[in-house]
Amino acid sequence: MISVEEALRIISEESKALECEEKDILSCLNKALAEDIYSRDNLPPFDKSAMDGYAIKSEDTDLYEDGVSIELEIVDLIKAGEFSDKELKNGQAMKIMTGAPVPKGANAVIQIEKVEVREDTLYISEKVKNGCNVIKLGEEIKVGDIALRKGTLIRPTEIGVLASLGYSKIKVHRDPVVAILTTGDELVDINETPKFGQIRNSNEYSLKALIQNLGLEALCLGIVEDKKDTLKSKVKEALEKSDIVITSGGASVGDFDFVEQVLNEINADIKFQSVAIKPGKPISFAVIDKKLFFSLPGNPLSAITTFEEFVKPACEKMLGKNMESDNTFPVILAEDFKEKEGRSKYIYVKIKAENGKLYAYKAGSQSSNQLITMSKANGIIIMPAGIGYKKAGEVLSGKFIFK
Amino acid sequence: MISVEEALRIISEESKALECEEKDILSCLNKALAEDIYSRDNLPPFDKSAMDGYAIKSEDTDLYEDGVSIELEIVDLIKAGEFSDKELKNGQAMKIMTGAPVPKGANAVIQIEKVEVREDTLYISEKVKNGCNVIKLGEEIKVGDIALRKGTLIRPTEIGVLASLGYSKIKVHRDPVVAILTTGDELVDINETPKFGQIRNSNEYSLKALIQNLGLEALCLGIVEDKKDTLKSKVKEALEKSDIVITSGGASVGDFDFVEQVLNEINADIKFQSVAIKPGKPISFAVIDKKLFFSLPGNPLSAITTFEEFVKPACEKMLGKNMESDNTFPVILAEDFKEKEGRSKYIYVKIKAENGKLYAYKAGSQSSNQLITMSKANGIIIMPAGIGYKKAGEVLSGKFIFK
Repeated sequence: MISVEEALRIISEESKALECEEKDILSCLNKALAEDIYSRDNLPPFDKSAMDGYAIKSEDTDLYEDGVSIELEIVDLIKAGEFSDKELKNGQAMKIMTGAPVPKGANAVIQIEKVEVREDTLYISEKVKNGCNVIKLGEEIKVGDIALRKGTLIRPTEIGVLASLGYSKIKVHRDPVVAILTTGDELVDINETPKFGQIRNSNEYSLKALIQNLGLEALCLGIVEDKKDTLKSKVKEALEKSDIVITSGGASVGDFDFVEQVLNEINADIKFQSVAIKPGKPISFAVIDKKLFFSLPGNPLSAITTFEEFVKPACEKMLGKNMESDNTFPVILAEDFKEKEGRSKYIYVKIKAENGKLYAYKAGSQSSNQLITMSKANGIIIMPAGIGYKKAGEVLSGKFIFK
Repeated sequence: MISVEEALRIISEESKALECEEKDILSCLNKALAEDIYSRDNLPPFDKSAMDGYAIKSEDTDLYEDGVSIELEIVDLIKAGEFSDKELKNGQAMKIMTGAPVPKGANAVIQIEKVEVREDTLYISEKVKNGCNVIKLGEEIKVGDIALRKGTLIRPTEIGVLASLGYSKIKVHRDPVVAILTTGDELVDINETPKFGQIRNSNEYSLKALIQNLGLEALCLGIVEDKKDTLKSKVKEALEKSDIVITSGGASVGDFDFVEQVLNEINADIKFQSVAIKPGKPISFAVIDKKLFFSLPGNPLSAITTFEEFVKPACEKMLGKNMESDNTFPVILAEDFKEKEGRSKYIYVKIKAENGKLYAYKAGSQSSNQLITMSKANGIIIMPAGIGYKKAGEVLSGKFIFK
């Protein structure tokens, strides 16, 4: 049995970013950039007005005194998308719209709300600073500057940056294909009526949803009966068709022998067979020809927890994302929490913000079959290995789930 | 100008959940349930073994003394998916796999790792408690119990709950269609080369990405030229084809007159025209025949911020989700932050966890055209209206962005 940290280190080491492909930027949302993006332009590409107002020479307002407005002659109107070919001279102003280029000779824009206009004359009753309301050419980014680095997560902001720089296609890493095999002779499809001793195959659906949440497509190879040869041929098929193979169930003591035998027969490199995490101890991880194999526990809560903690980081690494070292934050316990000592306990809780602080409340039984508890939870708190008890008011690391 | 809270209250009041439709559970991921879900079964449907081991009568181990193992006769093997029709008697044990039904007469399961077996005899060297490793019939949920309430967000967990209860289809609210109009004669498509005075239409792409992030589809009606009649006919088209219409740009002082005229001519009920938020003040909101109309500011940072703060909650309400009252948490300032007093300032920052606490670091210029700053940020901190300065070490409310 190894620690959660050691398991994550091994998984990270074995997960490599997949080949690159070029795609439309909107198809790359929530993936990671596979190339550095340099600016092809200055942004803004000209001195730009930040406001609807009047372009002026700021020095024309230097002589303003209380009660005596400065008068300027309005000589042109510059709409957004247009420009003036005149040069502004002392004593002149040009009406200008937000986003339009500030004309030659002008160095400031005074907002429309702050002036008075009568016919072609502008009245200003304040001193205006040089540069006021002017966004300078290249202020945001200059030609040749790096805009976004390889590995950057492409969020709506980055889509905006790429669009503003004229990138309609970019390079990202190909999506990993994740194959799901569920094992267990007790399982029937959710549309069937279980006979005595049988239960519905809910894990296939939660795992599909987890994969869908990562923006990936799942390849479901169905329920595999508990026979070694059947499992072996299904595992081989899965490895051919995918980058990551997940089996759910078949990972408890008696059963894992089965998976282990299959893995040995196909010369897999088994990296670990259990992790000090609760729920989820019987998770195993193997590598076969650069493909990753995870055998997840069959209990619903354990399957979801180990997917989120171990499979998700592997998918993200294959997508070229940097594995976040720490995404937890402090949570104050609103109640006493008691757990068995030993493994790191991932306790499903309700995290609520109250008076600017985050508190953890119990969500129900932490038994690893209790999906109902998890459906009442929005987060987890982590009780470290070796610690079994924390009192209300004490602090543990926590995080929100499915975020 | 109204406060952020008042704006959200008005939007919430005007946003109603859309009609219901029945869909496959996996198509409902990240939507909200439009019906209460009751359990059709007991879960588990029988007393179930939580471990691979041996089903026994616990009282048979009461006589265990140090050094003298209890011996039981192994009379059957119960695999997962099967059951034994024999009744267990004193002095007997049955081998049982995880998930299999505990046989009649047995009240405990001892794990395989804790026993010794020689031929058909089981040797136990400890006292086993009644109920040990047995998950009782209906322990998770009973027939007729409510499993998930209307309005519940359907996450992978809820997909698992629904699958385990045999629900393959459920009712959710129809997705709102969100139409995007971008206005501004300075805009060109991202594949064109801007002439002097022009910039690329990046907002259409960031807005599409924001809508895509909500799992919705955007209806893009393109760049609308700054002419009232053109805008009016496009707005009418958008209102016919969608539930929410967004315009981006055209919302500064001079321009909004334009949008306002169009809204008045089509008898829209204009609810507000500016909000005390920075970036994003010139956001307006109107209602036309139960359809929602948002005029977002044209500056990239303002457009994204106002979408996330105001349009997203409206979409979520239409999807039947409960608008979260508060999703912020305390963040410690790692540096001094200085802003103009007045509006609520949403400052884009890097939030980092250090020693179990969350700290906010500056990400760059907060000028509302600076998408590059936002692309360095993973969160915001909110400097309340009327406050302009907070020192390093002080605490503000913050949240992660795009989560």
